Amino acid sequence: MRIEVINTGTELLLGKVVNTHVSYFGQELFKLGLRIQRQLTIPDGEDIKDALKSAFPRSDVILITGGLGPTSDDVTRDVVAGLLGLKLDLREEVLEQVNAFFKVRGLVPNQSNDRQAMVPEGAEVLTNPHGTAPGLYLPADGGSPHLFLLPGPPRELKPMFKDLVFPRIADLREDDKPPGVWHNFRIYGVGESAIAGELDPLFEADDSVELGYCARLGEVDVRLIGESGAVERAAEQVRRRYRENIVAESEEPMEKVLVDLLTERGETIATAESCTGGEIASTITNMPGSSKVLLSGFVTYSNEAKASVLGVDPELIREHGAVSGPVVEQMAEGCLQVSGADYAVAVSGIAGPGGGSEEKPVGTVYLGIASQGGDTFVKRYFSPSDRKSFKLRTTRLAMDLIRRRLLGFALD
Amino acid sequence: MRIEVINTGTELLLGKVVNTHVSYFGQELFKLGLRIQRQLTIPDGEDIKDALKSAFPRSDVILITGGLGPTSDDVTRDVVAGLLGLKLDLREEVLEQVNAFFKVRGLVPNQSNDRQAMVPEGAEVLTNPHGTAPGLYLPADGGSPHLFLLPGPPRELKPMFKDLVFPRIADLREDDKPPGVWHNFRIYGVGESAIAGELDPLFEADDSVELGYCARLGEVDVRLIGESGAVERAAEQVRRRYRENIVAESEEPMEKVLVDLLTERGETIATAESCTGGEIASTITNMPGSSKVLLSGFVTYSNEAKASVLGVDPELIREHGAVSGPVVEQMAEGCLQVSGADYAVAVSGIAGPGGGSEEKPVGTVYLGIASQGGDTFVKRYFSPSDRKSFKLRTTRLAMDLIRRRLLGFALD
Repeated sequence: MRIEVINTGTELLLGKVVNTHVSYFGQELFKLGLRIQRQLTIPDGEDIKDALKSAFPRSDVILITGGLGPTSDDVTRDVVAGLLGLKLDLREEVLEQVNAFFKVRGLVPNQSNDRQAMVPEGAEVLTNPHGTAPGLYLPADGGSPHLFLLPGPPRELKPMFKDLVFPRIADLREDDKPPGVWHNFRIYGVGESAIAGELDPLFEADDSVELGYCARLGEVDVRLIGESGAVERAAEQVRRRYRENIVAESEEPMEKVLVDLLTERGETIATAESCTGGEIASTITNMPGSSKVLLSGFVTYSNEAKASVLGVDPELIREHGAVSGPVVEQMAEGCLQVSGADYAVAVSGIAGPGGGSEEKPVGTVYLGIASQGGDTFVKRYFSPSDRKSFKLRTTRLAMDLIRRRLLGFALD
Repeated sequence: MRIEVINTGTELLLGKVVNTHVSYFGQELFKLGLRIQRQLTIPDGEDIKDALKSAFPRSDVILITGGLGPTSDDVTRDVVAGLLGLKLDLREEVLEQVNAFFKVRGLVPNQSNDRQAMVPEGAEVLTNPHGTAPGLYLPADGGSPHLFLLPGPPRELKPMFKDLVFPRIADLREDDKPPGVWHNFRIYGVGESAIAGELDPLFEADDSVELGYCARLGEVDVRLIGESGAVERAAEQVRRRYRENIVAESEEPMEKVLVDLLTERGETIATAESCTGGEIASTITNMPGSSKVLLSGFVTYSNEAKASVLGVDPELIREHGAVSGPVVEQMAEGCLQVSGADYAVAVSGIAGPGGGSEEKPVGTVYLGIASQGGDTFVKRYFSPSDRKSFKLRTTRLAMDLIRRRLLGFALD
């Protein structure tokens, strides 16, 4: 099955936005044993016409993104209808959804939004719960391949693709060879090249399983792809080697693993953050159900806040500095006491770009874990990088330490 | 001058690697008043032949990335020579550079690396200090446009583009019109279609300025592109219409605007967050220098925390619920008092997916702003969406309310 992608969007060509659709589609389609043969980016406007005309005879499926909005340069809908000789009709139920989307938000829809309810005859509407422009599916018909018209914004496109496009493509490919099996490990605390150095030689001679790696600031995804028996045998090897470092055997984020673990055990946590500025709490609360496990979070940026909110001894701050083991220890224990949670995590570090010294350069961070009735763990780490990456790395490290404490694994 | 980009690389289509070349080229070329008209991604291998054949008659310049390495699927060099009817010669000085690159790293070059020293006659070699494969420039000649063959890895490509390609394109464009001017407005609190509905008719008849829109959860970027006088006149119209809604006349994020404003004024803030779970504090602390303006943040998810940390009256929570105007008012005022900041922002809402009711459905949120010596502002908002988008929207709304309070603008 030959699949092409056409992205419309002047902002993509001007370099204002990085095109992440292609890699998203590529990864999703790979799960079906399919791949993209060709991807084209064109500006908003009439170029879509020629692009489609030349792609039609080559393709079985074309995924088209962008150009479905309310403004005058959103022409994908009209061009497709024109090429296929289809009439555009105003679909009442779509208009109602568009208007409802505005109404729910206390906004008044204006005339230009009606365009988004125009649907070529025979097209299936792909509803868009995250925006106004619905997607459209036009099944293959004589000279034209299957066409999926999808909205440009990733947070509208991704759920629509996952829920409505992926299953349709899975159905279309029924004559193709069966997809391989895909098993993902999310590993924390071991480097990508170290993992590859260990695993690659094990499977070098084995054609029935393919390994893939993807590293992201402290985390590495190891993907096993191949026929199911071989993948299961390979997975066993990965498990044996990286037991305590395996955060999930899936693509679930660490915060989900943590919230699930705490929920299962009926336990609670609290956070005391300095250099991460609330990112640990915010990341955990991205997960539904986190309100039951995160009791409170404290962002104690100033020394006064560390003292008044968490009860850190100001003398200790003067003596050791705010970024120090003794202060983080008191932050964690104070946080535990004030919140009444079962576990508390505390961080204090130097995110940069300013504030570093020879003894404590930018990237220095202390983490502490306190728990009811347990010893408090404190350790110094060093991860120099830009401010945002530092915050994210430290957030992941903190969550992983809580995970390890919960599971009774060693903390260093 | 018409520029096209052709990226070769199976890994781009499999989604293993995000294509960042296009946005890099786009941004660089924009500095010359140029833009990419079309971008194509194809797999490694022979597809490059058809891609070039159809691009030749359309283009003045083609930037081609990838396919210059030593392996069998690196065919760009050969295909280009074949299409143009040029002989490939082994260039001794290139072979020496390739071999030197290996030697410096203590490696032994193998036979297959010789391929990289094959150069079509008449081509200019673009040296590659960061890898082995050199780039190639083939000037336009009769039926073929200017061709730049560049290596795939970004850390080899970017310096080569900057040092050797950019200046050549700058020379090529001397006959073109002078580069355009670009002005960006970041607008908060007005919808994209409403803005387009107002602005598009004003500039419909004016060819000297082009408008572009990009919407992102409550924010809209309005871009004016064109010749400088026209852009400045258009900018004046935008300013007049959206004065208080203009967050920045740049592409700076709202949190930067806020930290700069507070720093300038020597004022401080604190946050009391329920449903945003620390995201407001975390977003603000993404900015360097924020430690001077954010004193503390409180994530008071539980009712107990709202009472014990911020001093909210438990009776009030029982009577009105945690998501209510009176509670948010006390959260903001308690936060102001506990932190000693000049301004405090408080939020309480229902992020979902659970927890909604008929009276307070998922997406309901109360925001409060308290300030030393000022009245406390509280308002109910509604923005139903998925949990992460809800948090981000609410975070932006909170930051915008503080911005408005700081600048003395009306809050509703």
